[in-house]
Amino acid sequence: MEVDFGRARVAVVGLGLMGGSLCAALRTRGACAEVVGVARRPATLQMARDLRFIDRGVTDLAEGVRDADVVVLATPVRDILAKLATIGPWLSPGCLVMDIGSTKGAICRAMEDLPAGVQPLGGHPMCGKETSGLSMADPTLYRDRVFVLAPLARTSPEALDRGRALARGVGARPLVLDPARHDRLVAAISHLPFMVASALVEAAAAVAEGDPVAWELAAGGFRDTSRVAASDPTMMLDILATNRDEVLRALHAVQGQLALLARLLEEGDLEALGAAITAARNRRREIYP
Amino acid sequence: MEVDFGRARVAVVGLGLMGGSLCAALRTRGACAEVVGVARRPATLQMARDLRFIDRGVTDLAEGVRDADVVVLATPVRDILAKLATIGPWLSPGCLVMDIGSTKGAICRAMEDLPAGVQPLGGHPMCGKETSGLSMADPTLYRDRVFVLAPLARTSPEALDRGRALARGVGARPLVLDPARHDRLVAAISHLPFMVASALVEAAAAVAEGDPVAWELAAGGFRDTSRVAASDPTMMLDILATNRDEVLRALHAVQGQLALLARLLEEGDLEALGAAITAARNRRREIYP
Repeated sequence: MEVDFGRARVAVVGLGLMGGSLCAALRTRGACAEVVGVARRPATLQMARDLRFIDRGVTDLAEGVRDADVVVLATPVRDILAKLATIGPWLSPGCLVMDIGSTKGAICRAMEDLPAGVQPLGGHPMCGKETSGLSMADPTLYRDRVFVLAPLARTSPEALDRGRALARGVGARPLVLDPARHDRLVAAISHLPFMVASALVEAAAAVAEGDPVAWELAAGGFRDTSRVAASDPTMMLDILATNRDEVLRALHAVQGQLALLARLLEEGDLEALGAAITAARNRRREIYP
Repeated sequence: MEVDFGRARVAVVGLGLMGGSLCAALRTRGACAEVVGVARRPATLQMARDLRFIDRGVTDLAEGVRDADVVVLATPVRDILAKLATIGPWLSPGCLVMDIGSTKGAICRAMEDLPAGVQPLGGHPMCGKETSGLSMADPTLYRDRVFVLAPLARTSPEALDRGRALARGVGARPLVLDPARHDRLVAAISHLPFMVASALVEAAAAVAEGDPVAWELAAGGFRDTSRVAASDPTMMLDILATNRDEVLRALHAVQGQLALLARLLEEGDLEALGAAITAARNRRREIYP
């Protein structure tokens, strides 16, 4: 049976940066009736309670989700997949099962196998940070951010509405997308920047290894371009593993662009090189006027 | 004859973001006796005067540099090269001729041909921005930044000291490097990030062209990784043209890294992929703890 989101008991599984911030936002904004935190380590739960991010904390997953109206899985993607395979029997009828993992195809496919009485809904708030952990959690992390909702064919309109209410409840803007489309788009605007930043750090490090003065010269340009390379590797590896084809496609596109720029520079075709970097500059200014 | 920097008349040629900010810093901090701005357009000079960035402005290059104790060329690199080829006859004996262009090899070679009585010194303050123009100039732009000084064999110790005084006068930290070393290091930590950001924008745009919702999903990661792609194309093209070999070397290194990441992902070697992105993450955290 569905209840109004404002009267819901929400269980958030995983209290890292994203899950912790979700709890903090729900509770600070009084968006639901009760926030239950589920984490492996008692010390994490204690910290979440001390920060007043949760009403109640449990280490046992079965106990945490058993009487929840909404369950939000907030661990790395492959851990979400593992939990989806086990929590079915413990869920209440009518329970909304969401996640906030960064890829949606594999997760939404796994959600198909949840018990019939349960409502599944994929989710992905677009507000990652290169920091991680509960100590970095922030009740304003979701504010004004796009919160992608990826319903399955079996997801009821009411369940989708509850997902929207949760997204708005943390201050975000819900946007409904199908899983494959979501994964294609985030490969280009999120996973690709990570790969590029990671490669940049290693290429620059190879120069700096022979001459560490390089880092003294590094200014805002290098800092910003490389920032997301500091993202949590466990989270990123799960993302890459569950969005392989789209990430490879995006990687090949950027490799093609770099090869083009290198060829024009090598050939000394400064007119074409100028046109290429001007096109990218104009594009960047259109996106961020 | 050399004069103490505090009593010097400094002519800054080119009043864009970098030149304008240099004037503003010198004047705000009272670092020298007089700041003369040289720009092609009277409107630019008027604006610089209105902003109190310069004491005096002239449109004629010969007039601007004729009685200066220090000349700072602050135009794009290839324009600096053109000006170095013409200003020699107009300079006073003992005049210090500096520049703040982003590559140093070609400029320092061109400085060799200045008249014997003149003191040449390459310079490069590490504080670029993706904005440009006098309206974006900022007297604090140079504060606490590294200001590379690239002396020639013919540069006197006293002239280098005056360069140091100018760098400190705008609040920066002078760092002496030879031109070739400077160009190799900035290829890795400045020109490469630009190329990578530019390629990223075009690769993402290719996806967004078919599905503009991509830009709605773009969050801080894409914004920061692509930021320097918005740099002024004229300035960047000059940099690339005058640092071709080092930029190509850096480009090949990043292409190799991207090919490695793509291969590991394609082969599903998640252990090696995880190790590679963890290494880059750790490296990034070492550079920016």
